[in-house]
Amino acid sequence: MKKIMVTIPVEDRHKEYLEKIGAGCEFYYVSPSDVTEEEVREAEIIIGNVSPRLLKNGKNLKWLQLNSAGSDNYCKPGVLNSGTVLTNATGAYGLAISEYLVGMTFMLQKKFYQYYENQLEHQWKDQGKVTSIWGSTVLIVGLGDIGGEFARRMKSLGAYTIGIRRTPGDKPDYLDELYTAEHLDEVLPRADIVSLSLPNSAATCHMMDERRLRLMKQGAFLLNVGRGNAIDTDALCRALKEGHLGGCGADVTDPEPLPADHPLWDAPRMVITPHISGQYHLPETFERIVRIAGENLEKFLAGRIDEMKNLVDFETGYRKR
Amino acid sequence: MKKIMVTIPVEDRHKEYLEKIGAGCEFYYVSPSDVTEEEVREAEIIIGNVSPRLLKNGKNLKWLQLNSAGSDNYCKPGVLNSGTVLTNATGAYGLAISEYLVGMTFMLQKKFYQYYENQLEHQWKDQGKVTSIWGSTVLIVGLGDIGGEFARRMKSLGAYTIGIRRTPGDKPDYLDELYTAEHLDEVLPRADIVSLSLPNSAATCHMMDERRLRLMKQGAFLLNVGRGNAIDTDALCRALKEGHLGGCGADVTDPEPLPADHPLWDAPRMVITPHISGQYHLPETFERIVRIAGENLEKFLAGRIDEMKNLVDFETGYRKR
Repeated sequence: MKKIMVTIPVEDRHKEYLEKIGAGCEFYYVSPSDVTEEEVREAEIIIGNVSPRLLKNGKNLKWLQLNSAGSDNYCKPGVLNSGTVLTNATGAYGLAISEYLVGMTFMLQKKFYQYYENQLEHQWKDQGKVTSIWGSTVLIVGLGDIGGEFARRMKSLGAYTIGIRRTPGDKPDYLDELYTAEHLDEVLPRADIVSLSLPNSAATCHMMDERRLRLMKQGAFLLNVGRGNAIDTDALCRALKEGHLGGCGADVTDPEPLPADHPLWDAPRMVITPHISGQYHLPETFERIVRIAGENLEKFLAGRIDEMKNLVDFETGYRKR
Repeated sequence: MKKIMVTIPVEDRHKEYLEKIGAGCEFYYVSPSDVTEEEVREAEIIIGNVSPRLLKNGKNLKWLQLNSAGSDNYCKPGVLNSGTVLTNATGAYGLAISEYLVGMTFMLQKKFYQYYENQLEHQWKDQGKVTSIWGSTVLIVGLGDIGGEFARRMKSLGAYTIGIRRTPGDKPDYLDELYTAEHLDEVLPRADIVSLSLPNSAATCHMMDERRLRLMKQGAFLLNVGRGNAIDTDALCRALKEGHLGGCGADVTDPEPLPADHPLWDAPRMVITPHISGQYHLPETFERIVRIAGENLEKFLAGRIDEMKNLVDFETGYRKR
């Protein structure tokens, strides 16, 4: 009888769904912050993130289904036994975060944040010209589920879409152009909107440094939902102060959380949200995580490992396919 | 030699475009606030809005091309000579205002205004659950160019779209359901988002009164870009204070401009912009107005009046087709 530990905050109907698929297995439900070494030791399957520190006790662990899209903390040597299957929740977050990105684009383009600040002061005051998604060129850096869903939405709203991905691949319909990362410098000056949806890695850290921020078009907008350190924060503050950028909308910062006395809070045309675009803030995100877990559970129990969704390649930290 | 007065703020390239179409006509360019009685008297064609008060001097006026989408002020008896052709600029504003509406929907759904208020106080603070356009039901009241373009965008982002129009007609592809105005009460309780894009008329004044605001679903969002008086402002303040609505985003208010001491400024979950969604804030709007004027000029000069765009029916104030 396989023991399955579930650390995601399931409701009764989710339990029913999972337990039907895993009929005959023993399920136990634990809050991630309450997980004990003993509970990890017993688990053959874990559904949900668990502190990597605890996983070295996972002697029986055969499969870990993460609830996060990022999996870099679980790919490091010594965290999981060799041969453990690791799957992440890529695909669950695309809806919530791509909508956030479209909304943030409009927040900046239509100057809604300036109008809201005026509203707080009871000021009926025209802030002048705006721009549109229609007819704009958007550069999407990182074409996972989130970047792809964002590109699709921007295309449907009339934008010209250029994608940058790590490895070569076929161009999907919702992209007008597709390049690999080494072409970033060439396409940056063409974009009215640059969106970063990148995992944390050595290659993405400070990808938007001083030089690249200045390669951006005067008045262009920068969005970041991946990891705060994809942008050099000091260089960003300068680019905003000097008026080079039309604005920046970021759900992630470096450092994070942003200290109350950090200059980024008051940088002109900067809009900050506190890492809320994903998580479970949109209820549908959680439903999608449970569905990924359920479909993977069915395949794992049937021994069809190769057919599981979002199998992580330990070498790259990315999905295998 | 026909005399054409142009009151829209054209650049040289726009003048070239219009004068090529109206070769042989005499063009004169005047700012709307500087127009004299004499200038109106001389004009056979006017491109751009002119104070209705001045138009009684328009003895020679054969055609007035408005730069506004609304034309109610020009349909009143005595403003224009009988037989004068009146065309408006419907079609020019759909892009700018429908993007505004999508952006305002996200502003409310993703709580961007709350996060921006937190940012002004340097607060890194989670505001909890959000909702999505995907999977939501949106009710579009008023299906002119603006309502139609908004419906199209919401549909492409995954919403279920219900339209309300004044007169019966064929259901366009971007609507899932279509009703005439007398069915408003039946569909209001089904909508997560209600958007008003209505002209000013006796039928639309206080269309959203206390009773109808309460017919809206608990937590639903209300948007208004037409005329401020489509909503009963006092009833709206109450509905927001009592927490019945999830939020309201309005580019128009009643009264307008909103006085600094008006309670609507501070109503909870209220987002106000100062009638900026249209006008010429998006440069493409102006380009579209000039194109409509140019295409209509060509047809007017060729005597093909029936083929002109946006011919206004003086009885209803709406387009004839």
